[in-house]
Amino acid sequence: MNEKKKILLLTTGGTIASVPGGEGLEPMRSGVMERELELLRTYYEISVLDVMCLDSSNIRPEEWQQIAREIFHNRAGFDGIVVSHGTDTMAYTASAVTFMLPDIDLPVVFTGSQLPLRDMLSDGPDNLRTAFAMAASGCPGVFLAFDRKVMLGCRAVKVRASGFSAFESVNARYAGRVSNLGLVLDEEVLPKRKGEARLKPDVSKNVFLLKLTPGLNPAVFDMLAAMGYRGIVVEAFGLGGFNVLGKSLRGIQRAVEDGVSVVVTTQCLYDSSDLRVYQVGNRLLDMGVIQGRDMTSEAAMTKLMWAIGQGYEQEEIAALFEQNLAGEVTA
Amino acid sequence: MNEKKKILLLTTGGTIASVPGGEGLEPMRSGVMERELELLRTYYEISVLDVMCLDSSNIRPEEWQQIAREIFHNRAGFDGIVVSHGTDTMAYTASAVTFMLPDIDLPVVFTGSQLPLRDMLSDGPDNLRTAFAMAASGCPGVFLAFDRKVMLGCRAVKVRASGFSAFESVNARYAGRVSNLGLVLDEEVLPKRKGEARLKPDVSKNVFLLKLTPGLNPAVFDMLAAMGYRGIVVEAFGLGGFNVLGKSLRGIQRAVEDGVSVVVTTQCLYDSSDLRVYQVGNRLLDMGVIQGRDMTSEAAMTKLMWAIGQGYEQEEIAALFEQNLAGEVTA
Repeated sequence: MNEKKKILLLTTGGTIASVPGGEGLEPMRSGVMERELELLRTYYEISVLDVMCLDSSNIRPEEWQQIAREIFHNRAGFDGIVVSHGTDTMAYTASAVTFMLPDIDLPVVFTGSQLPLRDMLSDGPDNLRTAFAMAASGCPGVFLAFDRKVMLGCRAVKVRASGFSAFESVNARYAGRVSNLGLVLDEEVLPKRKGEARLKPDVSKNVFLLKLTPGLNPAVFDMLAAMGYRGIVVEAFGLGGFNVLGKSLRGIQRAVEDGVSVVVTTQCLYDSSDLRVYQVGNRLLDMGVIQGRDMTSEAAMTKLMWAIGQGYEQEEIAALFEQNLAGEVTA
Repeated sequence: MNEKKKILLLTTGGTIASVPGGEGLEPMRSGVMERELELLRTYYEISVLDVMCLDSSNIRPEEWQQIAREIFHNRAGFDGIVVSHGTDTMAYTASAVTFMLPDIDLPVVFTGSQLPLRDMLSDGPDNLRTAFAMAASGCPGVFLAFDRKVMLGCRAVKVRASGFSAFESVNARYAGRVSNLGLVLDEEVLPKRKGEARLKPDVSKNVFLLKLTPGLNPAVFDMLAAMGYRGIVVEAFGLGGFNVLGKSLRGIQRAVEDGVSVVVTTQCLYDSSDLRVYQVGNRLLDMGVIQGRDMTSEAAMTKLMWAIGQGYEQEEIAALFEQNLAGEVTA
């Protein structure tokens, strides 16, 4: 008989561990998951560590850092780690932790559920099983498992507020899918390690996500600079379209000259931004605006927060966005 | 032989009417569409009016008003109107024009293309044909036709930056699809008129779209109020999740008390926000925050800009968001 794989479950709260409270669902510690874990112990040797107990709407960069530290410092002796997490901000956390743990040397798999585990119809049991299978796969990297699919954490987007198929791998193939063959992995999607696992948890909170709308007051750029923001991710139109008739470009130019790193992505869910196709885009590139290419907004935000937090200068940050660090962008 | 239906084509520019210029694609007047229109004249009697010639990234609320006026004042004698438009902000324009033209009495169909009509492989011919068929359908309302599908203008979202299937009808069935049976309409989706067609073009530009990110500085709410914003649409997490541990709630409370209308939608592309499920959401509702329910962000933004522009007070605006005006929200 094969020895059972050793999996560490880190819990952070979320719907998966919630029970009905007086004012709506409230997250609980791992005790509420015990019946399901009992079944999973048939297949794995499981250790549980309750890290926090939060609705993921309340998970901030400080908690990303805590989760990354717990993963890094507790991983010895385990084959893989599962992190249970609320779905609302799981894509942000999984992206951020990806950058905080370069070359991580075991599988780290985020999962959660849309309906609490305690509910008979919950999607939690399936999601946990997919996550545990990925954690036992021996393939290092930061992943997100949901609805029988496994994706890179830095490619995940929550696209459905209530449906069980809540997460999609955006602009990247899935790393794995569950079928009648079990968990089938796509080797080409799996991250390739380039060195020793490191812990790099510093991030800046001074990054703003600006979704453009027609007629946006360009004074917003000055205001953000005045508020001390060091980075702005702009969700532009289509391939990266910007209002050029107004004063937006001057606002952006001033921000860039003041040392603010401006990354342009698209507000379309799918496909890559590409500033070279239209006239406006070329003017932005000349100003020193950084292309987000086919990154998700979640990945662009967390990569920029991380790059600024790591102390990189504006030009180094631009260079960093030319690089694919962990599968977050198509090279 | 049946008499040909009379269709008015209003052109506004966009990729569909673009030709390669020195610095990228540049929109041209309708002459560039003439070869395609020549073919369509086999089926319809077509009049053309060039309204503007813009990349739709540069279309602002002022242009929405101009388009709505041109539709309203030029519609007599026509069976339907097609509006050619850039894809980047077409969902915003189609939503805005929906609110500006209550009970419009003929089909108004927005369309465009991802590849210029002048390109042999363009999606423009197909999109124009679907749009003309819808314009000739006799079904009044504001629609968007793309990739052989017709949707309500106030339900359209541009989900792909480059793919031909660029628009989806979000949280609503399609109004029509092209198949081997021709254009097949879904009667239940078609808008029902409640009175005379009116022109109500006034909109406020003082509405901001705020996409939440973990750790967002709650001072942003104060800053937006100080900048004179009268409305904020918040794209919250999941069902409407908000950071409650920080000071965001106080910022929102102050904004609402100052007369700012705050509408909460979800940053997930699909499904409805619902503030009643979680604790935080219930606290927001108690403060007077308005639910966006299953509206798109584009529809929530333009409905709020329109409601403020029409001079409604904060409580009237809340009441207006309880009503389905043109199919933009599930009642």
